[in-house]
Amino acid sequence: MKRYGIIMAGGSGTRFWPLSRKKLPKQFLNLTGKDSMLNETIDRLLPVIAGEDIFVVTNEAYTELTYGTVEGRLRPDHILSEPAARNTAACIGYAAMEILRKYGDGVMGIFASDHYIRDTEGFCRVLEQAMTEAERTDRLVTIGIRPTFPSTGYGYIRRETKTDADTGTGEAHKVKEFVEKPDAETAKAYFSSGDYLWNSGMFVWKASVILEQFAKLLPDIYADLLRIGDSMGTAQEKEVIREIYPNIHKISVDYGIMERADNVVVLEGDFGWSDVGSLDALGGLYPSDENGNQRFGEQVSLDTAECISYSKDKLIALIGVKDLIVVEGEETILVCEKNRAQDVKQIVEKLEADGKMRYL
Amino acid sequence: MKRYGIIMAGGSGTRFWPLSRKKLPKQFLNLTGKDSMLNETIDRLLPVIAGEDIFVVTNEAYTELTYGTVEGRLRPDHILSEPAARNTAACIGYAAMEILRKYGDGVMGIFASDHYIRDTEGFCRVLEQAMTEAERTDRLVTIGIRPTFPSTGYGYIRRETKTDADTGTGEAHKVKEFVEKPDAETAKAYFSSGDYLWNSGMFVWKASVILEQFAKLLPDIYADLLRIGDSMGTAQEKEVIREIYPNIHKISVDYGIMERADNVVVLEGDFGWSDVGSLDALGGLYPSDENGNQRFGEQVSLDTAECISYSKDKLIALIGVKDLIVVEGEETILVCEKNRAQDVKQIVEKLEADGKMRYL
Repeated sequence: MKRYGIIMAGGSGTRFWPLSRKKLPKQFLNLTGKDSMLNETIDRLLPVIAGEDIFVVTNEAYTELTYGTVEGRLRPDHILSEPAARNTAACIGYAAMEILRKYGDGVMGIFASDHYIRDTEGFCRVLEQAMTEAERTDRLVTIGIRPTFPSTGYGYIRRETKTDADTGTGEAHKVKEFVEKPDAETAKAYFSSGDYLWNSGMFVWKASVILEQFAKLLPDIYADLLRIGDSMGTAQEKEVIREIYPNIHKISVDYGIMERADNVVVLEGDFGWSDVGSLDALGGLYPSDENGNQRFGEQVSLDTAECISYSKDKLIALIGVKDLIVVEGEETILVCEKNRAQDVKQIVEKLEADGKMRYL
Repeated sequence: MKRYGIIMAGGSGTRFWPLSRKKLPKQFLNLTGKDSMLNETIDRLLPVIAGEDIFVVTNEAYTELTYGTVEGRLRPDHILSEPAARNTAACIGYAAMEILRKYGDGVMGIFASDHYIRDTEGFCRVLEQAMTEAERTDRLVTIGIRPTFPSTGYGYIRRETKTDADTGTGEAHKVKEFVEKPDAETAKAYFSSGDYLWNSGMFVWKASVILEQFAKLLPDIYADLLRIGDSMGTAQEKEVIREIYPNIHKISVDYGIMERADNVVVLEGDFGWSDVGSLDALGGLYPSDENGNQRFGEQVSLDTAECISYSKDKLIALIGVKDLIVVEGEETILVCEKNRAQDVKQIVEKLEADGKMRYL
């Protein structure tokens, strides 16, 4: 069965400011020194999914940037533009309809464009299993990450203890429930139980199968998707999408489908995954020196420990400091206590309120 | 009697790195947002000393930079170039000889080019007294600063308790001794005694009088100065200076003359003086917000206290930090615990050892 990759690249979050900007969201950043997160996501899929079968769904605002970033890696007509950000259900439904109507049914994997994976081979092994699983069964397959610490920053997937003997690979577990980000105590319990995996937001299913779930669980969205689908290949396609898309029900696929469907299985992955959700996560991307300092770009330090520095052009010199994140943005320098990384959004809001848009 | 101003601008210190660089020492920096420290020093003298009678002595390496900085404020032939840095005695002796031989005797005031003075009027009042004092008597007049805290970073001048009734102004005190930077306990004793003033390095005397002191206390330097003086106005002047200067005895005027002369008096000044000796001194130049944060350039902060930030181009965003100095240099970002400001020189040494000269 044909395999497709769908990379969601429409995000415009502020949690990675000042590296991410309104005009340059995180998926377009080069955080590893190798390539943009989007291109790294594409390249990572290639052992399992042919490049000509990979799609990027992005916001209209980032379409040009996406073309420029992927530079011929993908077919131009595989870059799909959303006229408005309507959360992941709409995005995935649109891509499923695109595949089914234009290319025929197939197994599609859904991936974020701004996550980090250390072990590409390990990832590909699990993705291969997931693809096989979704091909042989009509199930919704999700890849859960074996927790490496009791994170309060991720949602969890609770799986059945026993593996699911009915599945093709024999390594999938039925999913009992999806749970939201836990408090510290609950996270510890999840971590030690062994039945909880991090929800990575990676899904694999047949285009036809997920659209059936839309019909069943999100019929309003399904109706919109059908109208879009009917326009596909006609002269009106763009116009119809522009008309319908901005009003599609805004809901995540997790909340709208995964938490409610009864045919969800999870495969466990352990390949150094991170959603790189806030600046402190940069620490996971770079090696540590003998004092636990991590850096991208030039750093020199004296009596400094457990600091993360990121700079493109400038040397970052640190003296007598600990547990700091120091980031050189294009027009901003951020110095942030490590466990306050999530509060950059408050600074962004402050700047927005003060009309200092040039820094955003 | 004619009054002259001598501004010493040959320094190339590293204590203000990364703002000061080898190619742009502190005296050429604009730390206040108004003008370079050198130009502010010149402008500050103008109520007491005519601009056409002000000299700058600098190192050959900075002569062009000095011309460019003072931009017609001074007579071009009043910018004197030292072929080598030989400490303050040589510099002052050279300037005194220049004045005596080329313009005739007069009262000369000696000033650093990289100090900060908040209250220019107060400064000019004391300078006027000092000029009068040096004119009426053949004494070495120094301006001591009333301490505002028990600093361990300044040398002190111990004065006689009684004012010196012999002096013209009646407000001078004879100097008992010059003392080096004290430890914290001694500094406290000095501070509470009332007999100790900070040694600001500002001196006023007749050119003829200081040269007599050279003859008496530093005869080797005096001999060199005479040879330079004899060449002045001849075609060989430059050549002679280039030959002699690099070998002049290297000693400070404090150590070579002030601590040993018996005709030294001190006038007390209280005009918001600082030698801006290390980056933490920037705090004294800028107003504080309600959390004690001080800034030059744009700063935005959240749960941040007692931090100093300096940036020319970029916004500095601070989250959850305290007692930091954050500086955007041209090619470096420094983040330094406030009481470690003096340790930037260790970073400079490290970079030098690693051959990373572009950052120096």
